[in-house]
Amino acid sequence: MKKIQIGLLGLGTVGSGVWKILHERRALLRERAGVDLQIKKILVKHRNKKRTVSVPRRLLTDDISQILNDPEIQIVVEVMGGEGASLRAVLGAIRRGKHLITANKTLLANEGHKIFKEADRRQVSVGFEASVAGGIPIIKSIREGFVGNHIQEVYGIINGTSNYILSQMTERGASFEEVLCEAQQKGYAERNPYKDISGEDAAEKLLLLISLCYGGWFSMKNIYVEGIHRITPFDIQSAGELGFVIKLLAIAKGEDSRVQARVHPVLVPKSHPLADVSGAFNAIFLKGDAIGPAMFYGRGAGMMPTASAVVSDIVDIAKSIDCCEARITPSLHSLAVESVDKSSNEYYFRFTVFDRPGVLGQIANCLGKNRISIASVHQREQVKGGKVPILVVTHKANEKDVQKAIHEIDRLSVVAGKTMMIRMERF
Amino acid sequence: MKKIQIGLLGLGTVGSGVWKILHERRALLRERAGVDLQIKKILVKHRNKKRTVSVPRRLLTDDISQILNDPEIQIVVEVMGGEGASLRAVLGAIRRGKHLITANKTLLANEGHKIFKEADRRQVSVGFEASVAGGIPIIKSIREGFVGNHIQEVYGIINGTSNYILSQMTERGASFEEVLCEAQQKGYAERNPYKDISGEDAAEKLLLLISLCYGGWFSMKNIYVEGIHRITPFDIQSAGELGFVIKLLAIAKGEDSRVQARVHPVLVPKSHPLADVSGAFNAIFLKGDAIGPAMFYGRGAGMMPTASAVVSDIVDIAKSIDCCEARITPSLHSLAVESVDKSSNEYYFRFTVFDRPGVLGQIANCLGKNRISIASVHQREQVKGGKVPILVVTHKANEKDVQKAIHEIDRLSVVAGKTMMIRMERF
Repeated sequence: MKKIQIGLLGLGTVGSGVWKILHERRALLRERAGVDLQIKKILVKHRNKKRTVSVPRRLLTDDISQILNDPEIQIVVEVMGGEGASLRAVLGAIRRGKHLITANKTLLANEGHKIFKEADRRQVSVGFEASVAGGIPIIKSIREGFVGNHIQEVYGIINGTSNYILSQMTERGASFEEVLCEAQQKGYAERNPYKDISGEDAAEKLLLLISLCYGGWFSMKNIYVEGIHRITPFDIQSAGELGFVIKLLAIAKGEDSRVQARVHPVLVPKSHPLADVSGAFNAIFLKGDAIGPAMFYGRGAGMMPTASAVVSDIVDIAKSIDCCEARITPSLHSLAVESVDKSSNEYYFRFTVFDRPGVLGQIANCLGKNRISIASVHQREQVKGGKVPILVVTHKANEKDVQKAIHEIDRLSVVAGKTMMIRMERF
Repeated sequence: MKKIQIGLLGLGTVGSGVWKILHERRALLRERAGVDLQIKKILVKHRNKKRTVSVPRRLLTDDISQILNDPEIQIVVEVMGGEGASLRAVLGAIRRGKHLITANKTLLANEGHKIFKEADRRQVSVGFEASVAGGIPIIKSIREGFVGNHIQEVYGIINGTSNYILSQMTERGASFEEVLCEAQQKGYAERNPYKDISGEDAAEKLLLLISLCYGGWFSMKNIYVEGIHRITPFDIQSAGELGFVIKLLAIAKGEDSRVQARVHPVLVPKSHPLADVSGAFNAIFLKGDAIGPAMFYGRGAGMMPTASAVVSDIVDIAKSIDCCEARITPSLHSLAVESVDKSSNEYYFRFTVFDRPGVLGQIANCLGKNRISIASVHQREQVKGGKVPILVVTHKANEKDVQKAIHEIDRLSVVAGKTMMIRMERF
């Protein structure tokens, strides 16, 4: 039986999970995959640190060259995170002809061009199933399961922290700040939660999905990103009364090799399967021209789900070693960008106005002037220091017109605060 | 570039879909998979029949030997359905060293043992992604994506016809007979709908899932099967009031290589993701020890979704030809059977009794004697010819005790009709 030696870079949460599965299931994996998988060396910072998994000390090293320069190691698994040192390690492994597996979406989103180019040149495979939606085999499904499809649209709940915060706000009517603080205390949110709540983390993952779905490379700067920090319990409650829940979605739509990509809060109809994805779960809903609509749901993070995805990549690559050609790396030609400005959506607006007669007229005029047609208006008595919210739901309107209208409305003297705009999706 | 010639057995709905994708997307598939795929011959009954897809007549043959004896054809795709002729065709192809792809779950469920054994002997691959849940890449996900997991439980909505009927009954309060008749008129249900509504079709698919999840072979006769034909609008409405929807689920639970398998209607909590899977959609919810809970959702049937799954198998096998070894066929050792009798569940009972005092006492006594503890009783005034329904929801009870209790209760003189029992799942 073929024996494959693996070098593991990092023994944190995910690394420990990978060790557990490969070590405890060696026999099972031999049976299922026909390959004998063995971790030969593990790169750690501190060899003597106490760990949650029991790993023979002789496997641990703090010298990466012991992995990179070992010709017996054919697969390198990067689970150390970060960017600078990981990039050097990853490129070093590829340049020595080793296949690479990484769970590092930030690295791939920012340096993927360099990494995939090098992999292509050295004819090695790059596995990154663990980098998007943890244990959900979404990359394999798009790349292999849907190989005969043109993917038309992708909608993902792919940031667990934001989804947890929005779910808690929805369930308990609590404020963003309150839930975030609690999530940080419980360890569900990072001490610095910026990347999660700003939508940036979701955008990095979206970029990887786009490369698989649309066969080309996208730049982070071409993804429109808006976070969840301005959403209030009032918005969530109002959305609920209209039959929607608010979710942070990563969206890509492609047509004629032009791709529109955006991450922002969305009003999702309660009847849509994405509406029920709550807590730290992830889900990806997509439409392919042959399969129609499909959805994948599961844990997006955590030790064992992520390790499960890494192991799936290890098995795939190990099986292909010495027989098949390396897997085709994502195509690196630049995709054409369809600007979000050109999209048309229905919109939810929450205007904050002074409680005076004639206010609605001024707002409605401004919307009308910008070709935005109103579907419904909801005014609830919630006076705060003379300020009241007015909710407006629109028919389909052009994004550029909407941006312009908001800019104008926010300058009206009757308007007392920044307008909240959330896009609606009907799927 | 490697060129692979394919023989297609059948040009019905699925066959036409496969032709469409391979023909129209030949360049795309070359780019994505690095293989040039070409259909060389297609077996049809009538060469001159008018068809929905335009296929060059020279490809059509009514003589299967032209495919089986053509050494250039390396992959045979069986999409003709049925059992006798298909089995001969499939075994003929395998014996000539051709790789096989089939969408025929009935054939695999009943003759899989023979087919996989032969494939193993001849070292050819058998792809059957299209046989379970149409376009959803569930077989690939279990086999490859979750390769590092022990799958603990599987729950599938894998019969579109039953799910469509139950969804319509739920939405419209219509009777089983009414909806079935309408579904037949619309072509959503077969003229002979027995296999779908009896649960047998779902059981065939479950058997294939079991072989992948638990690494062994199961026999159809060891799957407990109960259909949906006795469910009434009253049951659906009552379940709704209790916070549940009724779904036909295919369930497998495995522990210590003993597997319990059953197909029957289930009360699913409305908050569970399976509850929202309506119409002709399929979904598979499973729990793996590493990934935790995961769900896959999509179209379970239809020309293009099924063809998409067939094409995914074609690409996988084509890529492996002349380099990798054949994919490992499902293990054929018999799995130990855990009898459904030994399961414990919560239950929903609808007793039909004569409207007399003391009836509930007799029923409650009988349940108590059989160690079944009542969680709640609901008696609604719905007198029909002196008969009234009593609803009882139980705490966890043993299936064998429940079967015995129902047998006894149905013989009580106060009982006016056969008791309806539906199991509940909390997941």
